[in-house]
Amino acid sequence: MPPGAPRPPAPGGDAPEEGGCVEVVALAGIGEVAAGDDVGAIVAAAIAMTPGLLPLRSDDVLVVTQKIVSKAEGAVMDLRGVDPRPEAVAFGERWDRDPRQVEVVLREAVRVVRMERGVIVTETRHGFVLANSGVDASNVGPGTGDVVTLLPRDPDASAAGIRTAVREAHGTDIAVIVSDSFGRPWRWGIVDVAIGVSGIVPVEDLRGLPDADGRTMRSTIRAVADEIASAAELALGKSARRPAALVRGAMPPRGEGSIADLLMPASFDLFP
Amino acid sequence: MPPGAPRPPAPGGDAPEEGGCVEVVALAGIGEVAAGDDVGAIVAAAIAMTPGLLPLRSDDVLVVTQKIVSKAEGAVMDLRGVDPRPEAVAFGERWDRDPRQVEVVLREAVRVVRMERGVIVTETRHGFVLANSGVDASNVGPGTGDVVTLLPRDPDASAAGIRTAVREAHGTDIAVIVSDSFGRPWRWGIVDVAIGVSGIVPVEDLRGLPDADGRTMRSTIRAVADEIASAAELALGKSARRPAALVRGAMPPRGEGSIADLLMPASFDLFP
Repeated sequence: MPPGAPRPPAPGGDAPEEGGCVEVVALAGIGEVAAGDDVGAIVAAAIAMTPGLLPLRSDDVLVVTQKIVSKAEGAVMDLRGVDPRPEAVAFGERWDRDPRQVEVVLREAVRVVRMERGVIVTETRHGFVLANSGVDASNVGPGTGDVVTLLPRDPDASAAGIRTAVREAHGTDIAVIVSDSFGRPWRWGIVDVAIGVSGIVPVEDLRGLPDADGRTMRSTIRAVADEIASAAELALGKSARRPAALVRGAMPPRGEGSIADLLMPASFDLFP
Repeated sequence: MPPGAPRPPAPGGDAPEEGGCVEVVALAGIGEVAAGDDVGAIVAAAIAMTPGLLPLRSDDVLVVTQKIVSKAEGAVMDLRGVDPRPEAVAFGERWDRDPRQVEVVLREAVRVVRMERGVIVTETRHGFVLANSGVDASNVGPGTGDVVTLLPRDPDASAAGIRTAVREAHGTDIAVIVSDSFGRPWRWGIVDVAIGVSGIVPVEDLRGLPDADGRTMRSTIRAVADEIASAAELALGKSARRPAALVRGAMPPRGEGSIADLLMPASFDLFP
C-alpha cells in the first residue's frame, strides 16, 4: 500500500474531492499531561516527532482525545471534596457505583435523560447526550484514584487553540477534532465521536447532489467528523498512551464549523 | 507518511497488538453489480487490481457496503408491484414520501420504534434498530427509479461468503464486514456501521484489563467493527462508485464473531 501521490491542497470550499486512500497515524511521544500544560504545543511537537507527517497538508485532520484536553485545562474533579446528594448515594449503593462520582455526573448534567439499571444518560450544557455526562475515571494519571475528568468547558475553543498552535508551529492550517468515546442506544460498545471541532464542517450535507446514478440523494448527511474520530481511535486504542492521531486523505469539508452543527435540536429528538 | 514497515502476521488470538498506523484503501474497478453476481469474486478481483494490497495480511479487514451485497443477492424490491396499506398512504401523503416505499419499510420491520415527523425508526428481523428498516433508494442502479434495496437476509452469511472467496483467491483468511449507513439519536448525520461480520469479534471487551495507569477499566467495550466501518466510509464517500475498502493495521480482534454480539438485547434497551 504505497503512500498516496502528493495531492494539491484542498480548495478550502464546501465541495471536497473524493479521496480513496486514508491514513491514520498515532502521534508519538506524548507523555503524561498535567493541568496547565499547553496541549497545542504538545501535539505540535509530537507531529514533528512522528516520522513522515511533515509537511502537513491542508486536508489533514488532527484528532485529540478528550482526556488530555480536559487534564491540561484542569477540567478535573477530586472526588474527595464531593458530598453526594441522597439520590446519588442511593443510586450508587443500589448499582455498585461511587456515589461521589454519581454526584459529579448529576452536577455536570442539565437534564437527566435516563437513570436506571446502573446507567445514567444525561444531556450536558454543550448539548451532548451521553453516559455519565462524560465524567470519566480511567487513564486520569498515576496515583489519582479519586480524580475524574470532566468534559472541556468549550471543546470547540479547545480545538481552535490546538489548531492555532499547530499552524504557528508548522505553517499549515489543518482541521482539529476533539474526540470522546460515546455509547449508543441499541448497540453494545463505545465508538469515538467528535465533541469539538475547528476548521471543519462536522456534517457534510449531500442532500440535493446526484448519486452515482444521477438520482438526487434525499437524506444523506454524513457525520464526517464522527467518522474521522472513530477512524482515529483505531490507531489509538484504549489502554496505550496514544492520545492523538493525524488523519490524512479523508478529504474533510473545510470551513468554520461548530460541534453544534452536529447536534440534533430537541425539536427533532424522537428519543427524549 | 511512508507505508508502515512490514509487521508479522497477527497472532489470530483474542488479544490484538496495539497498532498505531491504520490505512484505508478503496478497492478499484468495481462496476455495476446485478442480481446473481458473485460479490466475493468481484471484490477478490478488485483486491488484485488495487495497487499495493497483495499479499494480504491476516489482520486486514475488508469492508463491503450493503448496497452491492443486497443487489447481488437480489434483496431488492420493485415498488411498481407494491400495494401500500392505508397507514402507509396516509404517512406518505402527510410527509411527502412514496407510500409504496413506506409500505416496504413496514413489511421489513418486526417492530416500529418511532413513526412520526416523517421519520420511521424500526427494528428489523436481524435486531437492528435503524431508519426505514434499511430500505434505500439511492445508488440502486441506472434506470431503476422504482427499485429499492433491502438489507441482506443474513449479513453474517454474506460476510462469510466473501471471506471464503477472498481466501480462495488470495490464500489469506482476512476478516470481512458488511456495512451500512445508520443515523443516531441526538446527532445529525449518518455514519457507517457493521451489519454483518465474519472472522472478527465485533466488540472488543477491555473490561478487567488495566488502563495506562494500571487502574482496572470498568466499562470499556470498543465497538471496533463499527469504527472500522466508519473508517472505511471515509475512503468510499457516498456518491462515487466505491463500494468496498480494505482496512489495514487496525489490529482487529480476530475470532468467529457474529453481528448479534454487537446488538443490545431488549432487556438492556433504555430507548424502546
